[in-house]
Amino acid sequence: MIIHSFTNDYSEGCHPAVLQALAHTNLEQQTGYGEDEYSLRAASTLRTLIGKPDADVYFVAGGTLANLLVLSSVLKPFESVISAETGHINTHEAGAIEATGHKVEAIISPDGKLCPEDIQPLLDKFPLYHTVRPRVVYISNSTEIGTIYTKMELTELSEFCRTNDLILFMDGARLPSAVTAHSNELTLADIARLTDVFYLGGTKCGALFGEAVVITNDALKKDFPYHQKQRGAMLAKGRSLGVQFDALLQDNLIFDLARHANEMAVKISHALKVKGHHNFLTDSDTNQIFPVLHYRTINELQKRYGFYVWEHINEEEAAVRIVTSWATPEEKIDAFIADLERNL
Amino acid sequence: MIIHSFTNDYSEGCHPAVLQALAHTNLEQQTGYGEDEYSLRAASTLRTLIGKPDADVYFVAGGTLANLLVLSSVLKPFESVISAETGHINTHEAGAIEATGHKVEAIISPDGKLCPEDIQPLLDKFPLYHTVRPRVVYISNSTEIGTIYTKMELTELSEFCRTNDLILFMDGARLPSAVTAHSNELTLADIARLTDVFYLGGTKCGALFGEAVVITNDALKKDFPYHQKQRGAMLAKGRSLGVQFDALLQDNLIFDLARHANEMAVKISHALKVKGHHNFLTDSDTNQIFPVLHYRTINELQKRYGFYVWEHINEEEAAVRIVTSWATPEEKIDAFIADLERNL
Amino acid sequence: MIIHSFTNDYSEGCHPAVLQALAHTNLEQQTGYGEDEYSLRAASTLRTLIGKPDADVYFVAGGTLANLLVLSSVLKPFESVISAETGHINTHEAGAIEATGHKVEAIISPDGKLCPEDIQPLLDKFPLYHTVRPRVVYISNSTEIGTIYTKMELTELSEFCRTNDLILFMDGARLPSAVTAHSNELTLADIARLTDVFYLGGTKCGALFGEAVVITNDALKKDFPYHQKQRGAMLAKGRSLGVQFDALLQDNLIFDLARHANEMAVKISHALKVKGHHNFLTDSDTNQIFPVLHYRTINELQKRYGFYVWEHINEEEAAVRIVTSWATPEEKIDAFIADLERNL
Amino acid sequence: MIIHSFTNDYSEGCHPAVLQALAHTNLEQQTGYGEDEYSLRAASTLRTLIGKPDADVYFVAGGTLANLLVLSSVLKPFESVISAETGHINTHEAGAIEATGHKVEAIISPDGKLCPEDIQPLLDKFPLYHTVRPRVVYISNSTEIGTIYTKMELTELSEFCRTNDLILFMDGARLPSAVTAHSNELTLADIARLTDVFYLGGTKCGALFGEAVVITNDALKKDFPYHQKQRGAMLAKGRSLGVQFDALLQDNLIFDLARHANEMAVKISHALKVKGHHNFLTDSDTNQIFPVLHYRTINELQKRYGFYVWEHINEEEAAVRIVTSWATPEEKIDAFIADLERNL
Repeated sequence: MIIHSFTNDYSEGCHPAVLQALAHTNLEQQTGYGEDEYSLRAASTLRTLIGKPDADVYFVAGGTLANLLVLSSVLKPFESVISAETGHINTHEAGAIEATGHKVEAIISPDGKLCPEDIQPLLDKFPLYHTVRPRVVYISNSTEIGTIYTKMELTELSEFCRTNDLILFMDGARLPSAVTAHSNELTLADIARLTDVFYLGGTKCGALFGEAVVITNDALKKDFPYHQKQRGAMLAKGRSLGVQFDALLQDNLIFDLARHANEMAVKISHALKVKGHHNFLTDSDTNQIFPVLHYRTINELQKRYGFYVWEHINEEEAAVRIVTSWATPEEKIDAFIADLERNL
Repeated sequence: MIIHSFTNDYSEGCHPAVLQALAHTNLEQQTGYGEDEYSLRAASTLRTLIGKPDADVYFVAGGTLANLLVLSSVLKPFESVISAETGHINTHEAGAIEATGHKVEAIISPDGKLCPEDIQPLLDKFPLYHTVRPRVVYISNSTEIGTIYTKMELTELSEFCRTNDLILFMDGARLPSAVTAHSNELTLADIARLTDVFYLGGTKCGALFGEAVVITNDALKKDFPYHQKQRGAMLAKGRSLGVQFDALLQDNLIFDLARHANEMAVKISHALKVKGHHNFLTDSDTNQIFPVLHYRTINELQKRYGFYVWEHINEEEAAVRIVTSWATPEEKIDAFIADLERNL
Repeated sequence: MIIHSFTNDYSEGCHPAVLQALAHTNLEQQTGYGEDEYSLRAASTLRTLIGKPDADVYFVAGGTLANLLVLSSVLKPFESVISAETGHINTHEAGAIEATGHKVEAIISPDGKLCPEDIQPLLDKFPLYHTVRPRVVYISNSTEIGTIYTKMELTELSEFCRTNDLILFMDGARLPSAVTAHSNELTLADIARLTDVFYLGGTKCGALFGEAVVITNDALKKDFPYHQKQRGAMLAKGRSLGVQFDALLQDNLIFDLARHANEMAVKISHALKVKGHHNFLTDSDTNQIFPVLHYRTINELQKRYGFYVWEHINEEEAAVRIVTSWATPEEKIDAFIADLERNL
Repeated sequence: MIIHSFTNDYSEGCHPAVLQALAHTNLEQQTGYGEDEYSLRAASTLRTLIGKPDADVYFVAGGTLANLLVLSSVLKPFESVISAETGHINTHEAGAIEATGHKVEAIISPDGKLCPEDIQPLLDKFPLYHTVRPRVVYISNSTEIGTIYTKMELTELSEFCRTNDLILFMDGARLPSAVTAHSNELTLADIARLTDVFYLGGTKCGALFGEAVVITNDALKKDFPYHQKQRGAMLAKGRSLGVQFDALLQDNLIFDLARHANEMAVKISHALKVKGHHNFLTDSDTNQIFPVLHYRTINELQKRYGFYVWEHINEEEAAVRIVTSWATPEEKIDAFIADLERNL
């Protein structure tokens, strides 16, 4: 019998404070399309948090929608976006970016991150106008495999992009988790300063659904609502998103939730390392960890826990993905660790 | 001071039963992407309601997204969709359908409805392969101007479509309002039988957000989730939609809510007619009415109520749009009627 | 037995001077992709002709390709193009513009031309970002129904566009015919000055195929070759187009050919008017005329001549389309007139 | 001084027989849009040649246009095309395929060819509807780097595609060169039988421009002219293509021309091998060869001949691309060989 699922970080609903805010504001009449007072206040709070009083903030229903909306609003028809091969837009969005007309240029990267050396060869391609022209660098933080950018890494990438007239776009579906990781060096303000556009994910951190898109580069702000409307990414009841983010941003709730999720995952990693097990697919202290385990261990654990076998390593071992969330109870972690240790 | 807004039917939040359902199920772990038990149960309830046990049901975040998703999944690149000129896809979706590559062929229709005689000329166009080929007939019920289809109208249109190999798609953003109108003759089962695909709108009738897309034509079912994912129309936390529709479909709650909205609007129409005022832009007993009023009446009313001036008629008069919702309190209607009568 | 076809102006091959130029230059090695010396020289000749030394000139294979290329290079995703309902892009391009993602907003116009009063209402639409935003005004000269713009008409339209930040794009598939019509007041230089981008059609006036796209608005020039390449509108052997236009532009050959075509059509119109027949669908002195004839006349003529019945007028009459070309022999015109007069 | 260019195979015009055919048929009136008698006859000749009396044949202006037309007509929005990383659609078409909405999935392949083992991993991706679904396998023959498919290779690939419900599409921009190479084992009939759709390139083998698209899979035939029209790939004067292919297919002229081109390239390869120089980037006996030469040799040769330095190998050496054509004079080859030997 499955006693807990570590399959993903969107198995539960939303934090109770979000539900309370929805209930509390429910019968007020509000303007539609994101112009309600809660959306405006949440946007204002976020601007303060990132130290960018002029940033534009939009709330959209999900990550794929945020990605395709931002990229299709930025790119000209012949321009491409560069992504790590593991990038969500390159793998698990059913070709959403290409469906808006743009090539995703994928770069192999074992840690799921991009650096200037990865990108330079794409800029050196000959000849003019026969190839697509790279215009956006898409990164995820935390990445799809749990890693995060150091301050030096993001700074170098940002400088490289500005030197080469490239837009830097951070998919922040798990940004709350990234900036609250133990090893994290980046503030939200750093991220707002070093990127041109990013989003802060609510779906995977305490909201029923929703991502907050933040545009800091002035050149990208114009006409964004037209794109948002056209892609079906503007809710009539925009308040449904605004009220949630307004609640999540009060007293940094969203970050406290993310920190809890990280701690739960790290507790598992730590337990493994204490037992001398140091074999992980990637080095992560966020809410996704990828230990490499024997198949017999995996088989035993799968009797009581849900999780993905992520990558076959050899005949004896595979990397699994264990994901925790803001709602993961510590006693489930303790139970999992006990079961894990028993079966190592 | 504005004491009530009749600007639209999405100014308030959701029905309390929806919030309760969200709260009640909140911490359960559920499968993502619409495969949670609440989405499955809501789909099943809906299938029963329409008498189509094989129908496919999908929940998406909003109307524009539902429209672009359905149409882009049905149409080949060179195929077009026929719409009344007032159709939402032709006017207020910022070119969302064209952005997926398809022409909207608009037909002038004073009552916002389509009939076979409107469509035949588009089928008679010469010559082959130089023009787009009409493939979908898009109708709204209730329409954007408050009218509804009679059983004969929908039956004739359905037969015409089947004879001419056209797909009939009903935008049901306000379908709950249509099927509960006093003059309505159509059951949901009729609609499911006479169309190929339709949706039942939650955003405008008791949900925080969400539309339930129902596909009854087998030929349109295949691969729909791929399209849904690609357009950013598949929520990771699909439960956020499923729980809401599960609550709204219990004991026909959604239809009770729609009936209330209709009655509130009709009360205003009735009051006008009792006073001898029979001038309306369209004949509506749904939750949107369009009385033609003197500008001085309009100006007086706008001091205390929110609503749109919909269409300039002449130097003295304009049609206004008054929209009621599931949440409209009867005392606001009474106050409005009193103010209206005072200023006629 | 059909002795001559007046069905269109692309039934014959190319002017002999074009074939000679192709033969004469055939074995020279030339650079590809439109950078051969003949393309460069033809572009230069055209720049001189229009008095715009900085204009960008590109040669593409056909009219639909030119239209979709220009429009998709100019428009942002949510922007629309305004066209007369009879405009080629709105009727006979199988949805080519929509396939690049853009709405064509069609305006009913009996003479196939647009004026500021037609366009203003589209600019007045409310509200922001829910509708598409008109950005390009597309006109054809001569139009699809044979009419041409006067200098005042084009000047007023141009001024209106500049005042309203609209791009004016002239489809010149039959521009040689327009500027050589007896009633024409516009020089090529006027057209280059009053529009932002236009093309000069070769397919319908002496070439095997090909249109010369001329961009005079600096803002539209950047990156055009990327768009051209991406749409498949850049020939590897660009010389095949360059050599043809180089020949057609020498000593104004292309305009002499157009003048001949016009004169042949006008001879027919004149003959009808001399006989007291003044009923035409449109007022044209270009190479397309649309006389309204009795069906019995039409039936008799169709035994010996090819042409389209363009529009059913009433039970007795229809408008037909008679098209002449650079290659139409005057004796065929004379024979046609004789047959026509015999059957009026 | 440059005495000859080996930069590409489209530097010259067309074979004199093509010009003669254009001249001979020039003033005949013919039906437009590819329904002229020459297009019909050329299609018929091609059908006989490939032994497929039911094949559909269309003539289009260029290779990129043929590729984007075929792929966008075959693929549903969420379906992808698999290509070698060196495939023309993946590199030198400025994102033309993605602009029609589809992902190109690129596979690294040193010889530019694809085999079942390359493709299987893409079919094994999990999970359903989150990823694109591969649908077309795109191959070039000869490839962009001069190699050709053996009969066993193409047979295995064809069987794999049919087993896995994949469409096999051969880019035949240089197919005449492939099937006349000394090492070739495949007839045109083999290719027509083993693929679902392919094209025979004229631009690079004796035509002014043009590719003949051949569809043998019945499921892909329907509605193709709509796609062709919509993409701007249907010439009004379709005869301009039909007459050329009619001439090139008479007495197998196009293949004789290709054989000459191959022999000219092979003569250079042979001369190098006789001198003990066996270092080539790929193993080619088609009209593109890629010898690896010292930079000092390259620099000397570039004083008198045009060609691309294709790939930097090390500080001393690079691979160059030498391309011959139907029009390459043997004396230029002899001169080049003499210069090459002098500078090895």
